[in-house]
Amino acid sequence: MFSNITSYGESNQGINRIAYSEEEQRALEYLKEIALVNQLLVKKDAIGNLIIRRKGIDESLPIVAMGSHIDSVYNGGKFDGVIGVVAGLEILFSLNDASIRTKRSIELIVFACEESARFGTATIGSKAMIGNLKKSELLKLKDKDEITFKDALNNLGLDLNQLSTVKRQATEFLSFIELHIEQGPILEEKNKDIGIVTGVAAPTRFKIIVLGEASHSGSTPMNYRKDALAGASEITLSLEEIAIKEAHYKTVATIGASNVYPGAMNVIPGQVELLVDIRSINRQSKFRVVEKFTRIVNEICKRRNLKFEIQLLSDEVPTLMNERIIEYTKEICETLNYSYQKIPSGAGHDAMNMASLCKTGMIFVSSRDGLSHNPNEFTKLNDIEKGIKVLESLVVKLANE
Amino acid sequence: MFSNITSYGESNQGINRIAYSEEEQRALEYLKEIALVNQLLVKKDAIGNLIIRRKGIDESLPIVAMGSHIDSVYNGGKFDGVIGVVAGLEILFSLNDASIRTKRSIELIVFACEESARFGTATIGSKAMIGNLKKSELLKLKDKDEITFKDALNNLGLDLNQLSTVKRQATEFLSFIELHIEQGPILEEKNKDIGIVTGVAAPTRFKIIVLGEASHSGSTPMNYRKDALAGASEITLSLEEIAIKEAHYKTVATIGASNVYPGAMNVIPGQVELLVDIRSINRQSKFRVVEKFTRIVNEICKRRNLKFEIQLLSDEVPTLMNERIIEYTKEICETLNYSYQKIPSGAGHDAMNMASLCKTGMIFVSSRDGLSHNPNEFTKLNDIEKGIKVLESLVVKLANE
Repeated sequence: MFSNITSYGESNQGINRIAYSEEEQRALEYLKEIALVNQLLVKKDAIGNLIIRRKGIDESLPIVAMGSHIDSVYNGGKFDGVIGVVAGLEILFSLNDASIRTKRSIELIVFACEESARFGTATIGSKAMIGNLKKSELLKLKDKDEITFKDALNNLGLDLNQLSTVKRQATEFLSFIELHIEQGPILEEKNKDIGIVTGVAAPTRFKIIVLGEASHSGSTPMNYRKDALAGASEITLSLEEIAIKEAHYKTVATIGASNVYPGAMNVIPGQVELLVDIRSINRQSKFRVVEKFTRIVNEICKRRNLKFEIQLLSDEVPTLMNERIIEYTKEICETLNYSYQKIPSGAGHDAMNMASLCKTGMIFVSSRDGLSHNPNEFTKLNDIEKGIKVLESLVVKLANE
Repeated sequence: MFSNITSYGESNQGINRIAYSEEEQRALEYLKEIALVNQLLVKKDAIGNLIIRRKGIDESLPIVAMGSHIDSVYNGGKFDGVIGVVAGLEILFSLNDASIRTKRSIELIVFACEESARFGTATIGSKAMIGNLKKSELLKLKDKDEITFKDALNNLGLDLNQLSTVKRQATEFLSFIELHIEQGPILEEKNKDIGIVTGVAAPTRFKIIVLGEASHSGSTPMNYRKDALAGASEITLSLEEIAIKEAHYKTVATIGASNVYPGAMNVIPGQVELLVDIRSINRQSKFRVVEKFTRIVNEICKRRNLKFEIQLLSDEVPTLMNERIIEYTKEICETLNYSYQKIPSGAGHDAMNMASLCKTGMIFVSSRDGLSHNPNEFTKLNDIEKGIKVLESLVVKLANE
């Protein structure tokens, strides 16, 4: 099943199974077919979430849900998202095969548009499901070919006017669990089978514009310069230093882009734009980094006679995973004799949205070299199988509560 | 005359009188016409240099030359190059008006393609005149619209096959003097009328490629990172620090461009390319900067577990201006009661090439706020007139030697 899904959008430059693309839709059709063949209920909602349900004994009880996504970034890897979907189906099929009935119904949700690659906004399917998306915001979205989000949906027979029907109630769910690759190096480095996610870090993001004075690189003495790049370099190193001091809280901070203007060999940079991404699952720690950082940007620019502008792009609140689910997962690992490690998720996931509806947990399996969003993304089959086993135990346990 | 020349290529985004463009050619036609009306000899060589000659009493003697350029960068200013050309014509006309005969012939050379803006190579006209350009190199040049250097010449009826005819002999010249705007802040800051150029700093240029590892900004802990931008930032600040220590020698060092890959908000930079420009008229000082800098790049990358590559793009030798001409210029300033300052030229000029043919000097007048290559470039008329007076006295003195 795994290699069937990954065959959609596969190329020698990695996986291109972009949200709402033909490749993704064909993969979803495939999932729908095998689910129907296996006597599962299948539904697609108005935003494109595919919902596969296995009925429980008492359909009136809040359900247990699993889920992830099958859309990819451009030139992505095979494992991101897909393993959570494959795991969910494998679990439903094996319950069927063993004729096991659970008290509660179990759902596998294949979320639409988890990646921000196409429309610049991530986890659209799960945000719609928790009612955290405005139609007016979605109407503004366009992809790089100028196709609007609305048209992308229309082309698939989906209707943005039905957005409100996607929203589900907290009372419908007991819990939600997502199995995902770590996308970081920790499990591999520590040689652990399973990562038990403690929380999903939410980014606080800035654009910082540093303004100096563009002038001739040959004829402007060092002490007359207002070099925006030198200022930006000091800012970059300060952010690194501040974040390292908060490493105990797993807080991370990154300047991922630095655009220099005019950017010529013989001109002192007059302007630099930095994109800053600060993440933590600890609100206090993230707050300290943001506070120290903005203070030091001010100091550096003042000392260097530069002007600056700080634009806050987003400031999301970290989501903690449910303590009881963390505890259950730990017990299951111990029972199965799998090594485990509690770990924060630096990347965002649909689980962070679902956490506002119900008790939510995440299970990580290791990523080779920490690589993700990359054709070289890789996770050992053996590790995936362990992840599936933990997910299965957890879901069955919850579904019988 | 000045405003007539600057009207060619003028727009509300500054001057666009690019080398070999229609605007530049029309300006050259204008110069040719007024030179002919004023009984001067006019010739255009095969690379497009316009040579305007006023005969001396003894035409067999080595001549005295002045010169500059009228081509501009994209969105440039009115003064860069143009004032040296206007000055030369004004001087020749006023000698005519006063019926002054000089012992030696005097030439004004309007050099072709001084700016690197169009073809990425600067001072093409003067390099051709000293025989320091290979046809094979010129054949490789293309502008941003993919027009080859050869075709640009052909379109104007010029012929690259005649390149060798452009070369002139050292025996033809006694001296060459260029009047130019400073393009830096020193004369304005020190409130001096005239800059007597001591030498033209030649750049040593590198491309430095810093290689780290691109990975997810959220899921890669600080201590697992190989952040190419953090390394590049340290490199940028080190270069600044090293150059400040050599400020006594007027040495300057600049990182004008920094390109970050992949350059996304949520990806730790895996690669950064820096363009490094180090200039001095003091060879030893420049050598020390280069040596210390390459050593520290090595140290920084080693400590940060980054790889790097240093590509030497150019390593030119600074050109000193002729001591006797510097002395003459000083005496003239004192006679005219103009304040002056000895000053190195950080920017390159045609004079640095002409220095290989004959005794060469340069005269600077101040640039408001040190600005150049910018629509806001400005020099006071009064300062330009003083520059012309000094140039005239110097040229007439030399032409009667």
